[in-house]
Amino acid sequence: MVAKYKEHIELSTALEILEKTFEGWAAKNKTEKNISAALGCVLIKDITAHRNVPHYAASAVDGYAVDASSTIGASQATPLKLVPSAYQWMNTGADVPSWANAVLMIEDSSIDGDDLIIFRSLTPSANVRPLGEDVMAGQIIAREGDIVTPALISLFLCAGIEKVPVYDRPKTLYIPTGEEIISRKEWLADHNPKSGTVAESNSLFIEASFKEWGYEVDVMPVVPDDPEILKEKVIYGAEKYDLVLVGAGSAKGRRDHTLEVFEATGEVLFRWVRMKPGRPAMAAKINDKPVICLPGFPMSTTVVLWSIVYPLLNILSGKSEDYQYLIKKAVGCREIRQTKLLVQHSSPAGIQDWLRVKTAKVGDTTYSWALTSGASVLWALAEADGIALLPASALECEKGTDVTVWMKRSVDFDKRILFQGSDDPAIQLLVTPIKRRGGDLVSRAVGSMGGLAALSRGECHLAAAHLLDDKDGTYNDSFIERFSNGEKWERILVFHRMQGIIVPAGNPKKINSFEDMCAGDNVFANRQPGAGTRVLFDYLLKKIGKPTSEITGYEQQFTTHMEVANRVYTGLADATLGIKSAADALGLDFIPLKEEPYELVIPSIYIEHPTIKALMDSLLDGQWRDSVESMGGYRWKD
Amino acid sequence: MVAKYKEHIELSTALEILEKTFEGWAAKNKTEKNISAALGCVLIKDITAHRNVPHYAASAVDGYAVDASSTIGASQATPLKLVPSAYQWMNTGADVPSWANAVLMIEDSSIDGDDLIIFRSLTPSANVRPLGEDVMAGQIIAREGDIVTPALISLFLCAGIEKVPVYDRPKTLYIPTGEEIISRKEWLADHNPKSGTVAESNSLFIEASFKEWGYEVDVMPVVPDDPEILKEKVIYGAEKYDLVLVGAGSAKGRRDHTLEVFEATGEVLFRWVRMKPGRPAMAAKINDKPVICLPGFPMSTTVVLWSIVYPLLNILSGKSEDYQYLIKKAVGCREIRQTKLLVQHSSPAGIQDWLRVKTAKVGDTTYSWALTSGASVLWALAEADGIALLPASALECEKGTDVTVWMKRSVDFDKRILFQGSDDPAIQLLVTPIKRRGGDLVSRAVGSMGGLAALSRGECHLAAAHLLDDKDGTYNDSFIERFSNGEKWERILVFHRMQGIIVPAGNPKKINSFEDMCAGDNVFANRQPGAGTRVLFDYLLKKIGKPTSEITGYEQQFTTHMEVANRVYTGLADATLGIKSAADALGLDFIPLKEEPYELVIPSIYIEHPTIKALMDSLLDGQWRDSVESMGGYRWKD
Repeated sequence: MVAKYKEHIELSTALEILEKTFEGWAAKNKTEKNISAALGCVLIKDITAHRNVPHYAASAVDGYAVDASSTIGASQATPLKLVPSAYQWMNTGADVPSWANAVLMIEDSSIDGDDLIIFRSLTPSANVRPLGEDVMAGQIIAREGDIVTPALISLFLCAGIEKVPVYDRPKTLYIPTGEEIISRKEWLADHNPKSGTVAESNSLFIEASFKEWGYEVDVMPVVPDDPEILKEKVIYGAEKYDLVLVGAGSAKGRRDHTLEVFEATGEVLFRWVRMKPGRPAMAAKINDKPVICLPGFPMSTTVVLWSIVYPLLNILSGKSEDYQYLIKKAVGCREIRQTKLLVQHSSPAGIQDWLRVKTAKVGDTTYSWALTSGASVLWALAEADGIALLPASALECEKGTDVTVWMKRSVDFDKRILFQGSDDPAIQLLVTPIKRRGGDLVSRAVGSMGGLAALSRGECHLAAAHLLDDKDGTYNDSFIERFSNGEKWERILVFHRMQGIIVPAGNPKKINSFEDMCAGDNVFANRQPGAGTRVLFDYLLKKIGKPTSEITGYEQQFTTHMEVANRVYTGLADATLGIKSAADALGLDFIPLKEEPYELVIPSIYIEHPTIKALMDSLLDGQWRDSVESMGGYRWKD
Repeated sequence: MVAKYKEHIELSTALEILEKTFEGWAAKNKTEKNISAALGCVLIKDITAHRNVPHYAASAVDGYAVDASSTIGASQATPLKLVPSAYQWMNTGADVPSWANAVLMIEDSSIDGDDLIIFRSLTPSANVRPLGEDVMAGQIIAREGDIVTPALISLFLCAGIEKVPVYDRPKTLYIPTGEEIISRKEWLADHNPKSGTVAESNSLFIEASFKEWGYEVDVMPVVPDDPEILKEKVIYGAEKYDLVLVGAGSAKGRRDHTLEVFEATGEVLFRWVRMKPGRPAMAAKINDKPVICLPGFPMSTTVVLWSIVYPLLNILSGKSEDYQYLIKKAVGCREIRQTKLLVQHSSPAGIQDWLRVKTAKVGDTTYSWALTSGASVLWALAEADGIALLPASALECEKGTDVTVWMKRSVDFDKRILFQGSDDPAIQLLVTPIKRRGGDLVSRAVGSMGGLAALSRGECHLAAAHLLDDKDGTYNDSFIERFSNGEKWERILVFHRMQGIIVPAGNPKKINSFEDMCAGDNVFANRQPGAGTRVLFDYLLKKIGKPTSEITGYEQQFTTHMEVANRVYTGLADATLGIKSAADALGLDFIPLKEEPYELVIPSIYIEHPTIKALMDSLLDGQWRDSVESMGGYRWKD
């Protein structure tokens, strides 16, 4: 019999199902823990103090225990004298003797031989902490449902409490599956892993996240693609653990296996959640325990961990926190920023879209832009400043759309400058020298023309260009004139760099000139319109009179030197145009064509920006220059 | 030679001194860690990928590898057929063979015998994740200064990176000092600790806080008050650890020892910070390591840990976070709330005041009020909803003053009701039954009259009163009429309770009547004006014609039954008036005087509030009733 379950549901529905199914589940995990070990656990009962704190009347100051009545009338002007039997020295915290009822601060006294001179009159119990001032024996000091905090642990000890009844922390098992998944150790040992294999990396993310959240997770060795074995492992996990996570891979076939196993061993609760990444999430109840299927792509696993697994851990711990709070906490949200989209974004219909965004403020506008929306790209998560959650209702989000960002890192927007323009690896190498000088540079590779256009729209602080004017062979002059609209833009020549033809190592097609490259059936990897390299390509084509329609691959476009070089490296293209450093990075051959100037373009209003100054200084940084030179193909202006 | 150092400085100055002294200090702690172990550490260098991720062209979907050119023209209306040699099955992630350049999704195909029917035409590289799609070999994937996150760890593994250069986490030693400090074990084993002793509880707070922050701390056994021994321990700590914390107690004498030791072994950096609690904080540099003196009272240690030690750990880790962010993080601030003071608060001149506040929203106003400002009271921290930092400029903060609260817990203000009124332990016992019913009750003991007055000012949702009208012997009627201003207030009789005379166990002064109590030189512990019990006392005094001037202790006032009972228990008073349960809790004798009705008073506008309903229901809770009955002195209305 096939169980009925919900499919293609909203995240909120998924969480409601889990709450309804596993609410009160923590009650099975009642235990008693030493107070220190109970940190972060939920109390099962009201806790009452066993002792008064303090357990005696204590002096609150350094000074002298006295009978308040013996101080009546004392003042700076009319000091009184007490004989030794009428006072007694007290350190702070000392036991006030029964004959005394007040403590005179040392500042309000002086010593005259054996006698004490007092300059202040006291009321009874002045500077005395009465017994039970902090808590009284029998007083309720923590309540059922409270989470044990550092302060409570300390208070428990003071109040004479050694152990407290709490819900135990849930224990989690993660089961990675799939023949193509290579264990960490093997993956690192093998410097040339086979095609079709993948590192078992999701468990690292899961372990580190659980550590940050204060939970424990065990990771099982990789389970092959065999429903019978998976079944055995899932049953084992649902017996020994409180929560089981199955890394079910990105392949639909494997997820179908998992569904089959879940149906055979328990009750499927839901499948498919309307979010991206993370859509193929699935949950089941097996042996009364929750079992969650994590889709394989790293970002899918991440979103399911954040949005479903962390809130579920909360339910299993007996906590009752607001889900919005929990998800933000799981993401690691430090603060919330209102931003405007810098780049149009298409969001799928009816699906909550989890964007990894970068941010920068130009003028008065804080912009955000998605680094990617692909579930398979992990780098974007590492690089992102934060997460923008586009609601299911969002579809075509135009540039300028208001977007709320959950910031994962603190950004000092006054220090951050946004670079848009021509791509060059040397720019990426500038980020750290600038950071060392107190600045912060973020960049988007949009091509030379894209950079100048962004600058003219006020959407970046600086651009870089190497645009050849096919009328007179000059670089940048006419383009800057056109885009700057009469604003004053400074130009800084960073270096000259060699553009050329990138071909596979050994140059199998014997391409030795631009004409060779354009001949025959060679597949070319092209750059996007507006890229300086594309402008150069079109210029050279025009010069030899070759129509673009005769260039195979002309329509397919890529936005960086490395991407096109990669097409050549992987055999998807026979040649491309690009800079020498990109060819060198992948061990490809390079046929030089033309040296070009690479210029930074900075509106004068930003010239005094501290990070622009840090950038200028970094351009002289010896270490940076060495790195650039070692890449090859660069010549300094001087 | 005595070193020069700053005294009585602002917190910001203290942090600047520490930053200046220890900035760059992390550089001494360079190490290399396995990627998993590096979680939370700061990278020392830019990290470049060792491998392309993926390291081969991978299918992004489940489907069939094809040559895109063989699909031209295919559509739902005009399907094409491919022979077996022209397609190959691909799981997601499979290696796309070199003869193919695109993958057709399974959804866009069907099978006809051995042939594949295709319903869509593809462009080259459709559904193919190119080699290096995520990161390319040689690409910078993390930067100097970045903190290692779960995402980075996972990415490092994928990119073939096993170890990363990071700054090591600082190791901290905590040295508790003082002969009166009793180790945890001894403290718990001894059910009657000697007067003048204190539990070594601060280390529990420190350990738990460090654990939450992801740092390690070792705790030394308690060091006696001997400068030579302390010197030896501090030198040891400054050799073996990166940071030493000295728990220097609350006594000035001990702090002077510590200062002496710091001066003898290193350089004092500052002493006295303008904040309360935590003022006696002190910092030194010994063997080039930071050594911080923590004042002894638990809340003082807490504030210094939050405001100085946590930011310092950040400096020693090579992180450069904003201090405001760090302090809020140390406090555990979840969200920031703007509130108005419910009760006037006097803040010392020129001192930043760290209030532990409780919060509630009545009508449209969110109120906060300080639970205490005493450094010795730990309960207030455990009980507080958050921390309100009054700036040094704040002095007399009137009721209604705007106060920003760093909320340590999430409060659902729609569920929370505020009770102000007559104190009774039975009310404290109601909190958990109400919570179990989805409600949230917070209370302030302000006496019967105080409660009615607060109700009339709209500063609470309900009050409780037992006010005797000395004209006619009725309870509450005339007072409610006076305060309610014609508003409709509901009255709920909770129980009758016995008021009487509380005297020491064995009744040494043989007090058997109200007249006995008022006779001779008996010291009385009095309640505050407006408390129902005070009204009763004044009524009974008037009845026997005793002037208040003849009652010793009449002027000293306390706000709860337990506080006055405590005065008797500790011998600071011979007698007090109060309820039987307070006498019983402390094992005191009780002479019954008068039974009185205890009524809840609730404006009708709140009668339908869900938490009022939960309260009404809780009044019938069997477990609650049992607890109340077992306290003694209560009679149900029915």
